[in-house]
Amino acid sequence: MSQVYDRVALIGLGLIASSIFWASKRNNVSGHIKGFARSEQTRNTARKIKLCDEVSDSLENTVTDADLIILCVPVGAMEQVMVEIAPYLKSGATITDVGSVKRAVIDAVEPHLPTGVKFVPAHPLAGTEHSGPKSGFASLFDNRWCLLTDHKSADEKAQNNVMSFWKGLGANVEFMDADHHDLVLAVTSHAPHLIAYTMVGVADDIGKVTDSEVIKYSAAGFRDFTRIAASDPTMWRDVFLSNKEATLEILGRFTEELFDLQRAIRTGNGDKLLNYFSHTRSVRRGIIEAGQDTEAPNFGRNIEPDGD
Amino acid sequence: MSQVYDRVALIGLGLIASSIFWASKRNNVSGHIKGFARSEQTRNTARKIKLCDEVSDSLENTVTDADLIILCVPVGAMEQVMVEIAPYLKSGATITDVGSVKRAVIDAVEPHLPTGVKFVPAHPLAGTEHSGPKSGFASLFDNRWCLLTDHKSADEKAQNNVMSFWKGLGANVEFMDADHHDLVLAVTSHAPHLIAYTMVGVADDIGKVTDSEVIKYSAAGFRDFTRIAASDPTMWRDVFLSNKEATLEILGRFTEELFDLQRAIRTGNGDKLLNYFSHTRSVRRGIIEAGQDTEAPNFGRNIEPDGD
Repeated sequence: MSQVYDRVALIGLGLIASSIFWASKRNNVSGHIKGFARSEQTRNTARKIKLCDEVSDSLENTVTDADLIILCVPVGAMEQVMVEIAPYLKSGATITDVGSVKRAVIDAVEPHLPTGVKFVPAHPLAGTEHSGPKSGFASLFDNRWCLLTDHKSADEKAQNNVMSFWKGLGANVEFMDADHHDLVLAVTSHAPHLIAYTMVGVADDIGKVTDSEVIKYSAAGFRDFTRIAASDPTMWRDVFLSNKEATLEILGRFTEELFDLQRAIRTGNGDKLLNYFSHTRSVRRGIIEAGQDTEAPNFGRNIEPDGD
Repeated sequence: MSQVYDRVALIGLGLIASSIFWASKRNNVSGHIKGFARSEQTRNTARKIKLCDEVSDSLENTVTDADLIILCVPVGAMEQVMVEIAPYLKSGATITDVGSVKRAVIDAVEPHLPTGVKFVPAHPLAGTEHSGPKSGFASLFDNRWCLLTDHKSADEKAQNNVMSFWKGLGANVEFMDADHHDLVLAVTSHAPHLIAYTMVGVADDIGKVTDSEVIKYSAAGFRDFTRIAASDPTMWRDVFLSNKEATLEILGRFTEELFDLQRAIRTGNGDKLLNYFSHTRSVRRGIIEAGQDTEAPNFGRNIEPDGD
């Protein structure tokens, strides 16, 4: 494909930024990519593994020529970065981000947006439990969604270019209202993450009592929870603090429903449990049909075709 | 290896039984394996895919010559099966099971155990979200734990043979007290499953409102939950009803801790969240070091080595 941007700046060099770099190089989506990270250690690692065409020690130098600037820092760090880069953005440049929350990022970026700079908020729905510059890989966004949000500063051309960029990285792109995005993500991602963190915390408390048996015998359910609960702590702290209302609303519904199922267990109401579990199984089917996961047992681990 | 048993009977032909069959054939762990399922459709499927050396329509015929009888039915169905097979068990035969709860299975089996028949309760910690005779595969138990429980009817020889059998299938074997097993599993498996079922149910309620967006945009956290919540409904109903006390105890601790984290979100206590999430991340590390999961991002899906 033809390159969408000549010069791209990546601010922050973690899992998402490094995957953007490798995916962009794989598909030739953009020209020169310059990266910046606050931590010297991260910059050194990035240079060592040849992450970015150039790694800069200066925010000013990183953004000054860029056509597209991608904010790849935790949501809580977005405003400070914007304050620092605003004076050096060239007119006609486009700012985008990869934050898991959209309203809070808009509120953080908007006040500092220079005239002539477009802002296209974005959120790629992709990730792993790993973080840092070494954790990225080129196929992270393949067939995943990237949700874009309208912003008054952006015209159609700026939006179309960001859309082309993400499609070039392998993603499917759709537009969504910022507040609606935050509610949908509270359900599909934010509340599940807090729940997984909590369950792992509880298990660990008990695990100390039972002498590491909890870890030793961690079966499928808990093992998947620990994977979710191993996600980047700073990123998730910021997500919860910046999507507070929607997350608390969903958690309220969750505990209400959990208490109802607990009561079914306590009173021995097997029919209620069976109906509930049969229904959730059909939700899973919907997700597989929507192409958002594979049907392979156990995510394709340890599989032999004998039993099929 | 030399065969541990000449004749094995599999009662119930779902994921675990079919995986036992394929693993046993792969490693030549036993001689003739006869299978029985209550459902004619399951028996026909089993015959079609050559699951078992022989599929029988009769429980009596299935167990009458067997040296090892493996109860692979949901925990709630164990007692009825024992009542029906007890008159036909040969003296010196060994009964074992694969139930996720051990105290309830012992209580179900014990009263019907004929003199001269040994009982070695067992629980292989392995599975996928799929069920039925087609879902099994030979490597399901490789490097997974199988926990055995002492029972007064069993001598050392009977226990050693069941242990050799499971090691032959690829599993690591340890003994554990039945009540302790039920507590550890409530933490690592039963409570996480109920939580996943609940979260998927909540999301689906809201999903109807938001026109399937919840499924369409299901991100990593929720996607993993749906996989757990797609597990066999009957099996899990029986698990919760038969491990009621331990499950409710763990769920009580869980909601207590969840409320504490919700309060941290509501009051903006970022330090508390960051510390909590950093700690759970280290628990994950423990699990990887214990060899119970792979470090590969996203369970090895969509991986390219570029970023490493």
